[in-house]
Amino acid sequence: MSNAADQGLSPADPPVKPAVATSLAVRRVAIDTYHENVVYLHRDCNVYRAEGFQALSKVEVRSNGRRILATLNVVDDPAIVACHELGLSEDAFLQLDVQNGHTVSVSQAEAPASIDALHRKIDGERLGRRDFHAIVRDIADHRYSKIELSAFVVATNRNELDREEVYFLTEAMVAAGRKFDWHDSLVVDKHCIGGIPGNRTSMLVVPIVAAHGMLCPKTSSRAITSPAGTADTMEVLANVELPFEKLTKIVREHHACLAWGGAAHLSPADDVLISVERPLSLDSPGQMVASILSKKISAGSSHLVLDIPIGPTAKVRSMPDAQRLRRLFEYVAKRMRLSLDVVITDGRQPVGNGIGPVLEARDVMRVLENDPRAPVDLRQKCLRLAGRLIECSPDVRGGDGFAIARDILDSGRALDKMNAIIDAQGRKPFKHNDPQLGRLTLEVRAAAQGLVIGIDNLQVARVARLAGAPKVIGTGVDLFRKLGDAVAPGDILYRIHAEYPSDLDFARQACARSTGYTIGNAEDMPQVFVEF
Amino acid sequence: MSNAADQGLSPADPPVKPAVATSLAVRRVAIDTYHENVVYLHRDCNVYRAEGFQALSKVEVRSNGRRILATLNVVDDPAIVACHELGLSEDAFLQLDVQNGHTVSVSQAEAPASIDALHRKIDGERLGRRDFHAIVRDIADHRYSKIELSAFVVATNRNELDREEVYFLTEAMVAAGRKFDWHDSLVVDKHCIGGIPGNRTSMLVVPIVAAHGMLCPKTSSRAITSPAGTADTMEVLANVELPFEKLTKIVREHHACLAWGGAAHLSPADDVLISVERPLSLDSPGQMVASILSKKISAGSSHLVLDIPIGPTAKVRSMPDAQRLRRLFEYVAKRMRLSLDVVITDGRQPVGNGIGPVLEARDVMRVLENDPRAPVDLRQKCLRLAGRLIECSPDVRGGDGFAIARDILDSGRALDKMNAIIDAQGRKPFKHNDPQLGRLTLEVRAAAQGLVIGIDNLQVARVARLAGAPKVIGTGVDLFRKLGDAVAPGDILYRIHAEYPSDLDFARQACARSTGYTIGNAEDMPQVFVEF
Repeated sequence: MSNAADQGLSPADPPVKPAVATSLAVRRVAIDTYHENVVYLHRDCNVYRAEGFQALSKVEVRSNGRRILATLNVVDDPAIVACHELGLSEDAFLQLDVQNGHTVSVSQAEAPASIDALHRKIDGERLGRRDFHAIVRDIADHRYSKIELSAFVVATNRNELDREEVYFLTEAMVAAGRKFDWHDSLVVDKHCIGGIPGNRTSMLVVPIVAAHGMLCPKTSSRAITSPAGTADTMEVLANVELPFEKLTKIVREHHACLAWGGAAHLSPADDVLISVERPLSLDSPGQMVASILSKKISAGSSHLVLDIPIGPTAKVRSMPDAQRLRRLFEYVAKRMRLSLDVVITDGRQPVGNGIGPVLEARDVMRVLENDPRAPVDLRQKCLRLAGRLIECSPDVRGGDGFAIARDILDSGRALDKMNAIIDAQGRKPFKHNDPQLGRLTLEVRAAAQGLVIGIDNLQVARVARLAGAPKVIGTGVDLFRKLGDAVAPGDILYRIHAEYPSDLDFARQACARSTGYTIGNAEDMPQVFVEF
Repeated sequence: MSNAADQGLSPADPPVKPAVATSLAVRRVAIDTYHENVVYLHRDCNVYRAEGFQALSKVEVRSNGRRILATLNVVDDPAIVACHELGLSEDAFLQLDVQNGHTVSVSQAEAPASIDALHRKIDGERLGRRDFHAIVRDIADHRYSKIELSAFVVATNRNELDREEVYFLTEAMVAAGRKFDWHDSLVVDKHCIGGIPGNRTSMLVVPIVAAHGMLCPKTSSRAITSPAGTADTMEVLANVELPFEKLTKIVREHHACLAWGGAAHLSPADDVLISVERPLSLDSPGQMVASILSKKISAGSSHLVLDIPIGPTAKVRSMPDAQRLRRLFEYVAKRMRLSLDVVITDGRQPVGNGIGPVLEARDVMRVLENDPRAPVDLRQKCLRLAGRLIECSPDVRGGDGFAIARDILDSGRALDKMNAIIDAQGRKPFKHNDPQLGRLTLEVRAAAQGLVIGIDNLQVARVARLAGAPKVIGTGVDLFRKLGDAVAPGDILYRIHAEYPSDLDFARQACARSTGYTIGNAEDMPQVFVEF
């Protein structure tokens, strides 16, 4: 009974064709696994017998010429997947791009081809251009598991990447995605490395430089760990999810847009890497440079102004660190032929007053409308950044940019441009003078007399997130006092806005541990020495 | 309408009590996520609004004074979880240990306390005893996500741990679990670092040394990436999942057992770490030493013989590497007061003929029964290891162990002891002379004339796994030729046994890529210089 399948085999024999499965039907399983493909196989699946595959092993799913890799979860409930079905998590289902019920085949996955290079990096080797391209391609194709992604992020952390490797990584990240071409030699953009709540400068810089006639097709991200991203805040005023064709039409007509970049497939490996960098709170210089520059180059920018805030609770905490980071950005930008202007700014406290989408949109509109309640620090910072970008024009003298930007803002031309962008993208109802804020409020007050000598960016951001930002757009924190302001006991430091009692409770507990404010004497105020 | 919740808060205020949720009901979700706790929350859950929690953020689930940490997946299908429910993966459900429908509360989890130490290790710092204890405790408590576990494993890989740190890690892993105390000053054990298919020595060494009167309470693992673990092979002959009380009774009566160690909660952090080390194929010296020694010390061993095989496709590929590893094992064992005897063995090829649970059980029983078909290499290796353990007895002279072990085996006393152990644990039906092997077979034959000069441990193991081992116990690979054997074209190198056509297809494809055998001339045979 045993010899039916006997046959001679040697290394010289041609490879046998892969076995094709015919009896598993795809089922969309409505579980959002956040950038990790997961397939669900019933334990008693009689085609493959789930246990023949090791739990958590990677499997390859093929259908219609497409194939995806996924982590296997074993299921014992036919209501989730039946024995003849293969369940796919939301991400996996979208990637495979087939109808529910479609026939698929599944097999044990070979390790991604670049795993060998990953292991060499883990072992401390320096990798070459080809290695980085292979790794980034596999990452963009979702061939890495969360565990392997995490290994890559840790193995390339700290100073494990030299600047040539950062260049290779950046180049590979650009190559793995789509690249915009605006057919213009001057395409400007600005970016901040992040970490400062409120800091909503893009929504002011973009209309100012576009009013000056520069091309500024700005795509932004939504908040990942912050209380609001530019896309979240802009979405209070206008539609930000635009199809590519509409986006290019708007940019051609108005020289600018303020859209969400998530659907554009720019540097897709970056999005995947972020899914492990953020939970690990890892943001090493090499990874930051590759992430930011790959996105900007893919978006078709020729000139970039980059904002590096420094302060005790900013991402960069000392001038030497800021200068080291600046040099790395400049080296890679030059290799990638991107014209880069780095501006080191004051990151000791939030910029503006509002933290949370509606509150930040309110601040932005007040600056554009030259409202006396507009936060001065936000206005000044935007004029400075816009001025630097304007000086990229061949016909503007160095040093004239700030004044040109101020004229554009003061004359209302920036507001007009912003309104044109909002109308083009699709205006949302927003009452500038009565923004819809979270119904529940909590006022956090000073306990002592003195000056505000410290505002913890991280703690204030945390309180705003617990209160519901960015998801519940009217929630967050509204700052009543900034650094250097005198306070007396009982003075309001900030007001928390929330929509739901449980969120307000979470925010209240965080404030009880620390308000984020330090009251003290003028001589204890941390100093930063930045050009302004 | 906004001031109802106003209240003054300052850092001096006492912490507010955590908000308690009352309306989420636990639901066991029958998904095996393999050592990662996952909770499933409906996107429209009106208590917490799933989106208020970041997808993939960690949440803390509390009930009945217990709490667990879990990764959040967001669900859009009420058939998996309804809006008022909190779904728990199998692991999470078992850990929380409540009834289906029980009320639970859920909140955003604080980062584990040891994350700061993890970050210092990622940054390349040397950690102290307290750091390792904190990290290992958090790992054992499942407070680390897969991403954080992976970061720890990579950050402690290579030579990132000095030997003092390996000692701290080992000590912490012992402290985080249960520890057996056999109330005897001589408790012997043997262990192999793994990587050699077939190598089923424990099932021979244990009955031999127990027949000599030594206490040898052996607990083993099941296969993770190999075609069979000792527990899988022993399970062909006897029940291996025994409650602790029964296990101790058997050991007291027979001086030995051969049981599965998984339920014993020995070094639980090790089990968690393995869940990321294996998919990453990382097995650095420091991690290996801490893993093996923590398990053995927790199991109450006083004397350990450790087998380090070397060969071109073994885990350790050169004598200098083997010696470095030996010294690290010896250093940590001494600090932990474990008497350790390291034996470096020939790892150029599989040991014995059968690879797969039933095939390996057949080989073991042939050795015990002094059957002429017994594999000589398996017999010799077991006698050597058993001899070393027997020499731990104060009344045995150095050099006499081998002869004593051989007498015990040849006289049938080892077989008697094995039968006693099998009966005590619960005998399974197994026909020694007609073992039930996989019905489908494939014979892999030599393509050329010459000597077998290489057998790739990894490829042979891979073929056996694809054929169905260890899950389908009668499947695997039966070797007909070993190193140094002469072959002619058409001679059988090995026979694959499978139970299902798709498994046989997978194995056939792997053989088509490489049989794992190299045929050549005697002078090309790799040499190893090991004591034998």
